[in-house]
Amino acid sequence: MWFDFKKLPRRSKYKLLTATVVPRPIALVTSLNFDGTVNTAPFSFFNVFSEEPALVVLGLESGPDGTRKHTTENIRERGEFVVNLVDEPIADAMVRCAARLPKNVSELPFAGLSTAPSKLIDTPRVAEAPISLECRSYRNLEVSEIRTLAIGEVLAMTVRDGIVDPETLRLDWDRYNPIGRLYANRYVRLHDWFEMSIPEPDDGDQQGSE
Amino acid sequence: MWFDFKKLPRRSKYKLLTATVVPRPIALVTSLNFDGTVNTAPFSFFNVFSEEPALVVLGLESGPDGTRKHTTENIRERGEFVVNLVDEPIADAMVRCAARLPKNVSELPFAGLSTAPSKLIDTPRVAEAPISLECRSYRNLEVSEIRTLAIGEVLAMTVRDGIVDPETLRLDWDRYNPIGRLYANRYVRLHDWFEMSIPEPDDGDQQGSE
Repeated sequence: MWFDFKKLPRRSKYKLLTATVVPRPIALVTSLNFDGTVNTAPFSFFNVFSEEPALVVLGLESGPDGTRKHTTENIRERGEFVVNLVDEPIADAMVRCAARLPKNVSELPFAGLSTAPSKLIDTPRVAEAPISLECRSYRNLEVSEIRTLAIGEVLAMTVRDGIVDPETLRLDWDRYNPIGRLYANRYVRLHDWFEMSIPEPDDGDQQGSE
Repeated sequence: MWFDFKKLPRRSKYKLLTATVVPRPIALVTSLNFDGTVNTAPFSFFNVFSEEPALVVLGLESGPDGTRKHTTENIRERGEFVVNLVDEPIADAMVRCAARLPKNVSELPFAGLSTAPSKLIDTPRVAEAPISLECRSYRNLEVSEIRTLAIGEVLAMTVRDGIVDPETLRLDWDRYNPIGRLYANRYVRLHDWFEMSIPEPDDGDQQGSE
């Protein structure tokens, strides 16, 4: 069975792509409104794409009003944002941040979250998040009236104590319990992991596997 | 604890970003070499970012030689590629496609995979993949000497029979068992899913949650 995307309405393409391109990492993005309010919204059209420069991409909505459009406007105006990663303890709060509140009302109290100052940019991070990436806008690509790809350069990473060994930079997976995005109302826990190695003729550099 | 990315070497930034921005979806990308050989390599610097236009992004290596650099060259030269999604039955084969073979040698026989013709482009898909996205290059952003962001527009999606209901476009999760990428040698199965809904004041449109 195959689908010709030229013949499908927007909603069908959205449904097919979000149900099949899984699991997606989740960015709980904080951005600063013109009046200093902190806007917070979750996105799973998100990933890291490069380490030199260190780049993340967000697929933002430019269309309908709501908390996601506020993020788009704030990033365009301020040129910065914070990607807060989401673990099991803040999963419920993350979903509450998707609620459609007025622009000058912060989602954080509604979600039971608080902010902490960032190190290198004005936009605060989510204090309860296990990891936060402070980003400066690298480029915004308006790909249609309804979608903008916001590319951000990671300037700094804040990590909750105990997750990453400061010497080896090795992650302690037992102390980091991120969740992933599937489709519709579904999310996924990540405890069911397994290992595979690149076989000969090249079984060395794992860097190669992204 | 925090890290100033200006002060970190490339390898450390790679390690921190790939260990924390998880789970990542996996693209097993097929591309056509100048001599007609099919190049196949896995990437997890990958996601969907827009449905109108339908866009996926790949973070490609432009630096060291090897199967991933071949993908970068082929996409630049041909202006098209196929993203094959990866489920549990082809997990081992996907990792074998990361082996460093010469440019004119296809990874597919080494991995035990075969090709099938695409519907709208010349580059074939992986016959054993549950889902394949035929993509035409939308834009290539060379962000450094070592990294290129390849943005592709999805022209067509092929789906293994039984996974998606042709009428409702609803996915049957029990018949689709994709895996996700964590870090180092780790991957993750996705059976441990759970549901959450956006609460009031907006508990309606799930489209809003990407």
